Amino acid sequence: MARGLLIVLSGPSEVGKGTVLKEVMKDESLHLAYSVSMTTREKRPGEEEGVNYYYVTKEQFLSAVKNGEMLEYAQFVGNYYGTPLHEVERLRDEGKNVLLEIEVQGCMQIKEKCPDVVTIFIVPPNMKELEKRIRGRGTEAEEVVQQRLEKANREMDMIREYKYVVCNDDIQLAADIIKVIIKRNQELYQGK
Amino acid sequence: MARGLLIVLSGPSEVGKGTVLKEVMKDESLHLAYSVSMTTREKRPGEEEGVNYYYVTKEQFLSAVKNGEMLEYAQFVGNYYGTPLHEVERLRDEGKNVLLEIEVQGCMQIKEKCPDVVTIFIVPPNMKELEKRIRGRGTEAEEVVQQRLEKANREMDMIREYKYVVCNDDIQLAADIIKVIIKRNQELYQGK
Repeated sequence: MARGLLIVLSGPSEVGKGTVLKEVMKDESLHLAYSVSMTTREKRPGEEEGVNYYYVTKEQFLSAVKNGEMLEYAQFVGNYYGTPLHEVERLRDEGKNVLLEIEVQGCMQIKEKCPDVVTIFIVPPNMKELEKRIRGRGTEAEEVVQQRLEKANREMDMIREYKYVVCNDDIQLAADIIKVIIKRNQELYQGK
Repeated sequence: MARGLLIVLSGPSEVGKGTVLKEVMKDESLHLAYSVSMTTREKRPGEEEGVNYYYVTKEQFLSAVKNGEMLEYAQFVGNYYGTPLHEVERLRDEGKNVLLEIEVQGCMQIKEKCPDVVTIFIVPPNMKELEKRIRGRGTEAEEVVQQRLEKANREMDMIREYKYVVCNDDIQLAADIIKVIIKRNQELYQGK
């Protein structure tokens, strides 16, 4: 069986990633699979080991990091979250295209370890307008304008880390673009 | 018959627009049509009136501009080139999706006159790398770095004028992305 792709999806929290992803996942011909993450945070009621997360202690987590067993990881509000390498490898070996929805920092870690990763950044439709507005003749205090420019520039710098940028001005279109990106990369990966 | 879209395609000269467009035009289900431009340059051997261009005098061209009959126009090496509005309107009324391959300045003129235009910018796969390289620890003279940064920024500013940015790292994929952009915008335009 042909090995699957590793696909990373990132984007600002307000961009509607979840809705677009749900639409993409509907297409069973893409053979997509989510990878279960590992975390040190406590299991919440209704959550299941190996379904929502793999729940480990801080010591276990840091030992996995030290042993190179994590594809990427990050600390968030005192807890560790990360993607176990063997989980991704297992799914890819089964022919699944593994989809990870992660932060920019995590994506950069993966690019180091896995140069053939397919990286997609979803941008909101109004971002370009926002930037133009910031650069235009502003009535705001110079300090505020500078802060906004810096924030916009940080976001633009993030986008540069990604191979594909998809504007979510329409859920169906954003999903369709992501589907063709996955299909074509699968063909290229399998040497078709 | 449903009215067609107006689609503008731009991108740096080395980006392979022609090859991608040829691939997109193959798909007859998209009902695409090129619009014949108007020019003041002399007809070359083998060229045909109404096929390659509409050939007019400088006076006729400037009169058309003055009368608002041009969707966009530009001067290049002493000659005028432009898109007659009635040509685009005729094709759209016939249900054709009109594709214009034009410069950024022309695109901005069209956005003013035709806010529902679908704008696509094709970028080369190595542009993001180029920018990172410029911003990295450079060994070049500061002046050269600054010039490069300015050029890259001018290009980034151009991209911001466009709704869709498509990276041409693979002709088939770039063409597929443009096809779904056209198909979905056609649905949206026709209120589906």
